[in-house]
Amino acid sequence: MPHLAGRMRRLSASELAKRVAYGILTVMSALLVLSASGRDRVGIVDDLSAALLDLHANIEESRMALLGGEFAMILLVSCADEQTDALVDALPEIAERCGLDISVRPTHAPEVSGRGRPYRVECVSLDTPGIVHAVTALLRRRNVNIDDLETDTTGAPFTGAPMFRMRIVCEVPEDQNASQLRRDLDEIALAHDLDISFRPLGTVGEE
Amino acid sequence: MPHLAGRMRRLSASELAKRVAYGILTVMSALLVLSASGRDRVGIVDDLSAALLDLHANIEESRMALLGGEFAMILLVSCADEQTDALVDALPEIAERCGLDISVRPTHAPEVSGRGRPYRVECVSLDTPGIVHAVTALLRRRNVNIDDLETDTTGAPFTGAPMFRMRIVCEVPEDQNASQLRRDLDEIALAHDLDISFRPLGTVGEE
Repeated sequence: MPHLAGRMRRLSASELAKRVAYGILTVMSALLVLSASGRDRVGIVDDLSAALLDLHANIEESRMALLGGEFAMILLVSCADEQTDALVDALPEIAERCGLDISVRPTHAPEVSGRGRPYRVECVSLDTPGIVHAVTALLRRRNVNIDDLETDTTGAPFTGAPMFRMRIVCEVPEDQNASQLRRDLDEIALAHDLDISFRPLGTVGEE
Repeated sequence: MPHLAGRMRRLSASELAKRVAYGILTVMSALLVLSASGRDRVGIVDDLSAALLDLHANIEESRMALLGGEFAMILLVSCADEQTDALVDALPEIAERCGLDISVRPTHAPEVSGRGRPYRVECVSLDTPGIVHAVTALLRRRNVNIDDLETDTTGAPFTGAPMFRMRIVCEVPEDQNASQLRRDLDEIALAHDLDISFRPLGTVGEE
C-alpha cells in the first residue's frame, strides 16, 4: 500500500521496523513500553509527558483513556541507549510524584512481516458479553495478528440504547483468503447479531 | 449534545456515570481497570477476552496496541459485585497462562461533571519531542480534563516523512472560553509548527 494521496495511515508494526531499518530511529535506539494509571485529575498527562521530556524520552505511540475514575495510559517510548538507565531509575520517583502506578518493559522494533495485508474490522452491536472473544477467536484461527484494538460503549442516537463498538487493525497473512475471512466474519455477525465491516486499510474513506 | 442523527459518539465520563445512574450498569456493579501486556503473538487478545468471559466479566471499554514487540492493553471491566473476588483471584493464573503482566485497580463510575463541553483536539506535525507536553500543559492551565488521548507516528504520503499525530477528546469547563482556548492552541501551533484543529464533538463529520 504505497503512498495514498491525501491520507496518512497508521504506522504498522512492519512500517515501524522499516523506519528503524532506514535509520530514522537509530539515534533513539532503546524502546520501552510504559503502562501507567492513576486516579484521574486535570494535568495527569502533562505531568507524565513533562517528566519524559525532561529525561530526553520521546513518545513514539500511545493510547490513553479515562476508564471509570482511573486514567490509564500505555506508551511506546524511545530514548538514546545511554539514557535508558536514567529513565528507568527515575520512574519510581515520577510515579510517586504524579500519583501513578507505572510499570516498564523493554521492547524492540517488531520484525517486518513483509506480506501481511492490513485490514480494519469494525463492529457495532448492542452491548452483550462475548463479542470481543467471538471476533478475536476467529482472527486467531485464521492466524491474523491484531495491531490495534479499541472498544467503546456508546449511547445510540435517538434511542439511547447501549451500543458496543469495536475497531480492530489487523494483518491478514498471505496464505489466508481475505474473502473467505469476510464470509466467516459475516457468519459471526449473523450468529451474534453484530454489524461487521471488514475493509483493507488505505482504501478510500480509510486512514 | 443530544441525539445527533446517524452518528454515534463516544461515551464520555459523564455519560458513563449517567448510564450507571439510569440503571444500565446496576447488574454489573463492580468496575475494575486492568492493565495487561506481553510479548505479541497471534491469539493474545482472544486468550484474555475468553478468560474474562469465563469469569462473567464484561469489557466496557478498552484500548490495545502493538507497541514495539509488546502487545499492551488497558480495559475497563465490569462484573457483578459477588464475582469480583473470583476475578481478581484468577488474574495471576491468567497472567501466567497467557504470558502477560497484569495489574488491576478497582474503580468507580466517574462523577457527572454536568457542564463540560466535549471537544476534539487533533494535531499533526513532524515528529519532534515535546508536542504532547506543549498541548497538554495548555489544557491543564485551562482546567480542561482529558478523556481520551491517542498518538501515532505515521509515514507521510509521498514524502515518507515521519509524522506525529495526536487525537485528544477533552472536556472544556463551563468557565473557560472555547474561542480563547482555540487562540491559545493556534499560538502553540505557530510556535511548534503544528497543525492543530479544535472542534466540538458531535458536529458534522465527527463521531
